[in-house]
Amino acid sequence: MAYEFYYWPSIQGRGEFVRLALEDAGAEYADVARTPGSMGRMAALLDGPHRPPFAPPFLKDGNVVIGQTSAILLYLGGRLGLAPDDEPGRLWVHQIQLTIADVVAEAHDTHHPVSAELYYEDQKPEAARRARHFRETRIPAFLDWFERILAGNGSGTLAGPDVTYADLSLFQLVEGLRYAFPKATARATARTPRVTALHDAVAERPRLRAYLASDRRLPFSEEGIFRCYAELDG
Amino acid sequence: MAYEFYYWPSIQGRGEFVRLALEDAGAEYADVARTPGSMGRMAALLDGPHRPPFAPPFLKDGNVVIGQTSAILLYLGGRLGLAPDDEPGRLWVHQIQLTIADVVAEAHDTHHPVSAELYYEDQKPEAARRARHFRETRIPAFLDWFERILAGNGSGTLAGPDVTYADLSLFQLVEGLRYAFPKATARATARTPRVTALHDAVAERPRLRAYLASDRRLPFSEEGIFRCYAELDG
Repeated sequence: MAYEFYYWPSIQGRGEFVRLALEDAGAEYADVARTPGSMGRMAALLDGPHRPPFAPPFLKDGNVVIGQTSAILLYLGGRLGLAPDDEPGRLWVHQIQLTIADVVAEAHDTHHPVSAELYYEDQKPEAARRARHFRETRIPAFLDWFERILAGNGSGTLAGPDVTYADLSLFQLVEGLRYAFPKATARATARTPRVTALHDAVAERPRLRAYLASDRRLPFSEEGIFRCYAELDG
Repeated sequence: MAYEFYYWPSIQGRGEFVRLALEDAGAEYADVARTPGSMGRMAALLDGPHRPPFAPPFLKDGNVVIGQTSAILLYLGGRLGLAPDDEPGRLWVHQIQLTIADVVAEAHDTHHPVSAELYYEDQKPEAARRARHFRETRIPAFLDWFERILAGNGSGTLAGPDVTYADLSLFQLVEGLRYAFPKATARATARTPRVTALHDAVAERPRLRAYLASDRRLPFSEEGIFRCYAELDG
């Protein structure tokens, strides 16, 4: 039975980390909310009595509903062949994913440092201050951490010899940072050649290359998590 | 062999969610960085070449080092008898923990909305705005979600018939919110009697009651994640 995936239909957002894993594995899945008239099914599960996720994205596999991007990938990793077999290896990949989720949350808050319920235009002074710290301190700190992991692992991937969902997620993180903070990200990745090489290798994986060129891949936009506001790139 | 737990020695912070699980289970563990002269061991693992966590807290169990609070609890849950046996149950408890981690991050950012590297005093106007939205919108939204889960589960716990680490974590979240936002939390919990009842029941668990009365339980303070600044409570 195909996986049912639920996320906002017009943005990459947090859901894109799940889409990339499903696409890379060639998994059968329905991106439910992108089917016209299907937003009600997403709302029904969020409002439901049985283990309702707090927010999209979530995955439905038969009777199992799983929210939180990192938990979805934890569930899918072994099933899609995108995680190690051993428990320490799976936890390590999960730990990397959780840290990527932290970067994503911080990237979001550069344009919404006060509240997600206000427009960016209503919190621009706060955004300018937060974005400066994010691009000067946090982007380098996180990318340096990934670079150190890649140097230690030695195989061009973050964990073990094979590609995992964490590698796909790091690709997406670099994509997003480049879109939102092109100048700051270029400065940071100039010091992290292994991160850049991993990004480029992931983009060339056959199924992902086809996906990225398809209309299933939504464009980045100023509705999503990674937003390009030139004034926030310094 | 005893677990080795690593976290900043003077605050509850994110580490407290792990401490509560270890204490409730009566597990043998060393709170390493609280031993005089042991901060260097924490730094060595963070700077190490093999699977370094991005930040504390982390747990060392033999040769396995696990960072990220939620991943630590995922690892410990079954071992400590604080998680369901079945995979969907474990994922559900983990999903709740990840959502609690989201609240914790948002609570932190009420006093540090610009940067964790600046003092609160250097970001007070931004903090005032962010805190208002957090206490008026986010605290009620999250607590209502927990209340809905408790109503659906029906046994006074968040998942299944038995207490899990997510229940202990919800106790700690309520403690922290009450410390940091006493007025706003009182308003929100007036609508969530099941959350309050769970909080009170967890506090009465024998091992936790002893822990909470001991000097192993660090006090809340304005160095931690939950900080009591009257002006942020409206």
